[in-house]
Amino acid sequence: MSHNSFGHLFRVTTWGESHGPALGAVVDGCPPGIRLDTSDIQTDLDRRKPGQSKFVTQRREEDLVEILSGVFEDDRIRESHGGQITTGTPISLMIRNTDQRSKDYGDIRDKFRPGHADFTYNAKYGVRDYRGGGRSSARETAARVAAGAVARKVLNAIVSGGVTIRAALVQMGPHQINRANWDWDQVNENPFFTPDAAAAAFYETYLDGIRKAGSSIGAVIEVVAEGVPAGWGAPIYGKLDQDIASALMSINAVKAVEIGAGFDAASLSGEDNADEIYARQDGTPDFRANHAGGILGGISSGQPIIARFAVKPTSSILTPRKTIDTSGRETEILTKGRHDPCVGIRAVPVGEAMLAIVLADHALRHRGQVG
Amino acid sequence: MSHNSFGHLFRVTTWGESHGPALGAVVDGCPPGIRLDTSDIQTDLDRRKPGQSKFVTQRREEDLVEILSGVFEDDRIRESHGGQITTGTPISLMIRNTDQRSKDYGDIRDKFRPGHADFTYNAKYGVRDYRGGGRSSARETAARVAAGAVARKVLNAIVSGGVTIRAALVQMGPHQINRANWDWDQVNENPFFTPDAAAAAFYETYLDGIRKAGSSIGAVIEVVAEGVPAGWGAPIYGKLDQDIASALMSINAVKAVEIGAGFDAASLSGEDNADEIYARQDGTPDFRANHAGGILGGISSGQPIIARFAVKPTSSILTPRKTIDTSGRETEILTKGRHDPCVGIRAVPVGEAMLAIVLADHALRHRGQVG
Amino acid sequence: MSHNSFGHLFRVTTWGESHGPALGAVVDGCPPGIRLDTSDIQTDLDRRKPGQSKFVTQRREEDLVEILSGVFEDDRIRESHGGQITTGTPISLMIRNTDQRSKDYGDIRDKFRPGHADFTYNAKYGVRDYRGGGRSSARETAARVAAGAVARKVLNAIVSGGVTIRAALVQMGPHQINRANWDWDQVNENPFFTPDAAAAAFYETYLDGIRKAGSSIGAVIEVVAEGVPAGWGAPIYGKLDQDIASALMSINAVKAVEIGAGFDAASLSGEDNADEIYARQDGTPDFRANHAGGILGGISSGQPIIARFAVKPTSSILTPRKTIDTSGRETEILTKGRHDPCVGIRAVPVGEAMLAIVLADHALRHRGQVG
Amino acid sequence: MSHNSFGHLFRVTTWGESHGPALGAVVDGCPPGIRLDTSDIQTDLDRRKPGQSKFVTQRREEDLVEILSGVFEDDRIRESHGGQITTGTPISLMIRNTDQRSKDYGDIRDKFRPGHADFTYNAKYGVRDYRGGGRSSARETAARVAAGAVARKVLNAIVSGGVTIRAALVQMGPHQINRANWDWDQVNENPFFTPDAAAAAFYETYLDGIRKAGSSIGAVIEVVAEGVPAGWGAPIYGKLDQDIASALMSINAVKAVEIGAGFDAASLSGEDNADEIYARQDGTPDFRANHAGGILGGISSGQPIIARFAVKPTSSILTPRKTIDTSGRETEILTKGRHDPCVGIRAVPVGEAMLAIVLADHALRHRGQVG
Repeated sequence: MSHNSFGHLFRVTTWGESHGPALGAVVDGCPPGIRLDTSDIQTDLDRRKPGQSKFVTQRREEDLVEILSGVFEDDRIRESHGGQITTGTPISLMIRNTDQRSKDYGDIRDKFRPGHADFTYNAKYGVRDYRGGGRSSARETAARVAAGAVARKVLNAIVSGGVTIRAALVQMGPHQINRANWDWDQVNENPFFTPDAAAAAFYETYLDGIRKAGSSIGAVIEVVAEGVPAGWGAPIYGKLDQDIASALMSINAVKAVEIGAGFDAASLSGEDNADEIYARQDGTPDFRANHAGGILGGISSGQPIIARFAVKPTSSILTPRKTIDTSGRETEILTKGRHDPCVGIRAVPVGEAMLAIVLADHALRHRGQVG
Repeated sequence: MSHNSFGHLFRVTTWGESHGPALGAVVDGCPPGIRLDTSDIQTDLDRRKPGQSKFVTQRREEDLVEILSGVFEDDRIRESHGGQITTGTPISLMIRNTDQRSKDYGDIRDKFRPGHADFTYNAKYGVRDYRGGGRSSARETAARVAAGAVARKVLNAIVSGGVTIRAALVQMGPHQINRANWDWDQVNENPFFTPDAAAAAFYETYLDGIRKAGSSIGAVIEVVAEGVPAGWGAPIYGKLDQDIASALMSINAVKAVEIGAGFDAASLSGEDNADEIYARQDGTPDFRANHAGGILGGISSGQPIIARFAVKPTSSILTPRKTIDTSGRETEILTKGRHDPCVGIRAVPVGEAMLAIVLADHALRHRGQVG
Repeated sequence: MSHNSFGHLFRVTTWGESHGPALGAVVDGCPPGIRLDTSDIQTDLDRRKPGQSKFVTQRREEDLVEILSGVFEDDRIRESHGGQITTGTPISLMIRNTDQRSKDYGDIRDKFRPGHADFTYNAKYGVRDYRGGGRSSARETAARVAAGAVARKVLNAIVSGGVTIRAALVQMGPHQINRANWDWDQVNENPFFTPDAAAAAFYETYLDGIRKAGSSIGAVIEVVAEGVPAGWGAPIYGKLDQDIASALMSINAVKAVEIGAGFDAASLSGEDNADEIYARQDGTPDFRANHAGGILGGISSGQPIIARFAVKPTSSILTPRKTIDTSGRETEILTKGRHDPCVGIRAVPVGEAMLAIVLADHALRHRGQVG
Repeated sequence: MSHNSFGHLFRVTTWGESHGPALGAVVDGCPPGIRLDTSDIQTDLDRRKPGQSKFVTQRREEDLVEILSGVFEDDRIRESHGGQITTGTPISLMIRNTDQRSKDYGDIRDKFRPGHADFTYNAKYGVRDYRGGGRSSARETAARVAAGAVARKVLNAIVSGGVTIRAALVQMGPHQINRANWDWDQVNENPFFTPDAAAAAFYETYLDGIRKAGSSIGAVIEVVAEGVPAGWGAPIYGKLDQDIASALMSINAVKAVEIGAGFDAASLSGEDNADEIYARQDGTPDFRANHAGGILGGISSGQPIIARFAVKPTSSILTPRKTIDTSGRETEILTKGRHDPCVGIRAVPVGEAMLAIVLADHALRHRGQVG
């Protein structure tokens, strides 16, 4: 059952609300013997952390992760590994909430914000923790990023040569980057995680206008995994692309996912869409295109795995919107407070984390069935 | 674990290969007391059946379903219900393969068809049933449609007023329908399951050209569920949209899924994307737009649920493509035989079935947790 | 979810009723490349088959298994393996029911047989297929035995030296065998699957008396797996002994399960219960006792895995018992028809099958996490 | 997947080691709107807490539980419910370890204690947190008890009249209680949780002798659930008794589980074992015996559910035992430190917790499928 868990052999369960004392993840099924320190996780968390530029929420959270279980260090391990290692038992990760500012929630307590989960959580449960969105807050994604950092370690431990998973913002509002400018090194050089320096300069002005207007805008993120061997995935209902779609669509505010050519594949002919295969010297396939996004029949082909997902604009804006209150009366609401004018920006490390989790799970599943 | 199963409380497991003796589905968790006869299933199967027009594969299959378990009829049931009913135990559905024509598979036995799962199945398992694609064949979707028909019965038994699930082809190649012409009644009046009669006329000529050229083309399908009450779904990793994405991406040849505004949401401002809410007389929400596609925070809002998915062109074409053989040598392949010039057409009933399965599962899950 | 499925990576789903057209199992997650022919399965099925002696039900079923999917044979495979092999896709196994004799079920249609599942199925579902017990019939165990035969093949393919799984009847009614007489070769030499030839002679007379009186009696079965390497299992909720307990308790009419010393461990001191360890020449442990039954902390120790389970007497007897009818009125019932005076006898191959399934699942799970 | 999780709709995941900073449980799937305060949980935890008499480990742990997520309180809730309530999102429970005394673990670091999981954890993972047994320590059961307290609240919220779950020690070493003396009120009046005051007096002397000798002894615990309605459970692989067997066998040191008559059922005739049914005035069944332990065909009958489990003596004793060290050399070990002479005593509240978890899960599963 998967209300709050994701994955099978590598299984992540998250918990916590935006304004509760803490949030966290339990990572079960991690192979033993992998070096894991908080610093491995903190690096990824810091990329997602709020308050790092004027373009993301000004909530101040250190997002310091604690590892509460599943790792061990003794003298012999220190000698052979240089630090603590995973033991194969569940890894409990916790991040304290420190800046909740929860005193004043009058309006969102009684009114349903359009585009948010307020109405639907209420419809489902009859009660909701309205403070900062409660469980539906994007704050939950900190737990994903922490778990994703563990997944990366697993992949690098299992796959010779390692697996590199990177994401980038490729569209903000209607403005796509110029793919000719793609430079992965740029991604961490601008506050938008975009690989196109020229686009970054443009987004700076563009998003500042949106921010000042109290508005918001959507984005498209691309995630790429390199180094995945051929053969991961499973037929029919355990397809690798299916699980990637599930993983990415589970991120807050995501409304669309595509693999490889994605929606453009609908417009292609069979001739153009078939990624022709040549042989390398060792007889392994040398694909000359990657419309498939690295996945055929739900199973990895050895090519880079490429996925994109669309993040809607946050619904927290300063312009009043029509809505109803919890008594069913018509009213208006505008959302003050600390929010992201383009919530898609912080989805970049989250997308990486979710892809890492899917791949770690499939790495173990493949090894289980096929050896 | 989900190699060949989908869903949790309403759980579908499929089995079978394209050229084996049969294929089928085991539907577990179906509520008891629901009338279910083969005719309920056959109707949906007949819509997906091959050989119904020149635009789909000419393989001749009757696709007659047998119900091998999970239903019962005796005198008292016959009196009160008029037929057999589900008993709550697993429903085993079987469809015999009759037209396999498997004598000649020389070329695909030894060569990997680009765009097909030949190479990846081989990379994973070291063996593959190459006859007609084996397990990776779209023939498996017959089992999905059969299970989906059961899911529809469940939804109609549980939801007062019923749930209507319909799909339509909205784009073939680069050619979108005109949404102003949308007429659900048209969908079953043309061989393309398109709701726009004018588009149907155009597609007739367009696809005939593609067919005669031995080429193929992609498509986009839209699936809509009406009547779903607010409150189905689950937070975080059991999101309704996430499970829909998973379900639709699991269909053969699907490369993209979107909910509501989907990728277009990236270009929208928060003001435009927020579906404003007015009150009906009874205090329930009257949404004035549906960019959300009926799902907020992973939970249904009571609006129609709207999803779209892109189907790539089938890779079985008459133009030779470069590839390698199982020994790693370069060669060429062209795929003769009976294939769909636009495999997206037959994905229309499959998309309906998968959405029905997701909704039936979430209906039961919601009832389990919330009552 | 596990209404009708068992296992995770090696996952068995069964379906079918006593008097429906067929019953079967879908085995998902089987590693590829394992030789599998119907004869591998039929051997085990034949041991469980009804009608083989006067001590088991006289229902006449051939119990011929069909493999409908998941295996493949072509010229190259035939050359290298000598027959068909598993492909890694789901293996669908079907057994037709042929001797249902379902004309006359008047009494059990309207009355609840004490000790049977009649009342509880009715209480749960509001409907039940009363013919021969429907889904609750021990006939379902044929599907378990078929799936268990596949599990054996997996274990022998994965574990060097193979895994031997054998069961035997060690108690009938209050009469235990003499363990000093234990001879595995005897098990298939008598109709009781007992390893003690002297006990077999006694049981012959004893059970004949019970049979002629229209009565029934319980039994205890012991199952032993040899060759399981140290390290299978998982901590806490995936314990090997826990899954064995679950597997054996899921067999019809089983009321108790114990591992190693079992209930006797309650009476032991820590000194007596601790299986002392000496070293073999290669430094591996040489346990001098096996109170643990081969499992410590939920993980296999490399010793033989030993489990026992108690099977209650079948409740189908010729002596009238007080009961109520479906209208809640008091009445009496006696069960005519073909039944087992000691249903525990036929549970012997079923116990083997369930242990094989647990072990195959854990073999793959272990390999997945630990490599 | 169930390495460290139990249940489906009501799903408990535990984490933590004996000598790590903390341990905990994430309870997912809890229905919303149920009052839940730490005091509800603390009561049960206090019964399991170490250090309460000379007969249990002298480790000093307050075992204070923190609820980190999944509950909410605001003014309106306080008015209508009088405190915080569950929200339907995951409930994270954490218990800090405070008295680890981990300085000196020389011996168990290098030697495998016979009867403990030392050797098998090492065989599986190649590494183990040897401090206090790490993950295999009975300390993990604190998390079970905390989760079980939530399960009780769920049962009482769902079942009209409530469900009462109680356990008692019915045998210590070879000494069974006198069932004629059974008095539930006695259970919390003696340090052994036994319902027989005379037995308690005897055990006092008996166990003191064992404790002083540095030895240990096993026990049998009986768990009873009253108030469970007929109809919970599922056929075949989701049987209520199967899940109870799994739950109880997953408790540390448990080697046997039985339901109702259990192993004694093997000695019974069909006549004696059939619990005859009379009718109450309202037509519901009035069973005159309960050999079935409240479960028929895996589904509850409405009678009390009765299970028993055997707990082996702890292997931590002062008498040296032969063993090997991590290098495979023969040696001896004796276990100093704080241990339970009869670890079965503290298993009493753990057994209650596990039965509560199974029942809560099945309550929701039943409601999901059948409504």
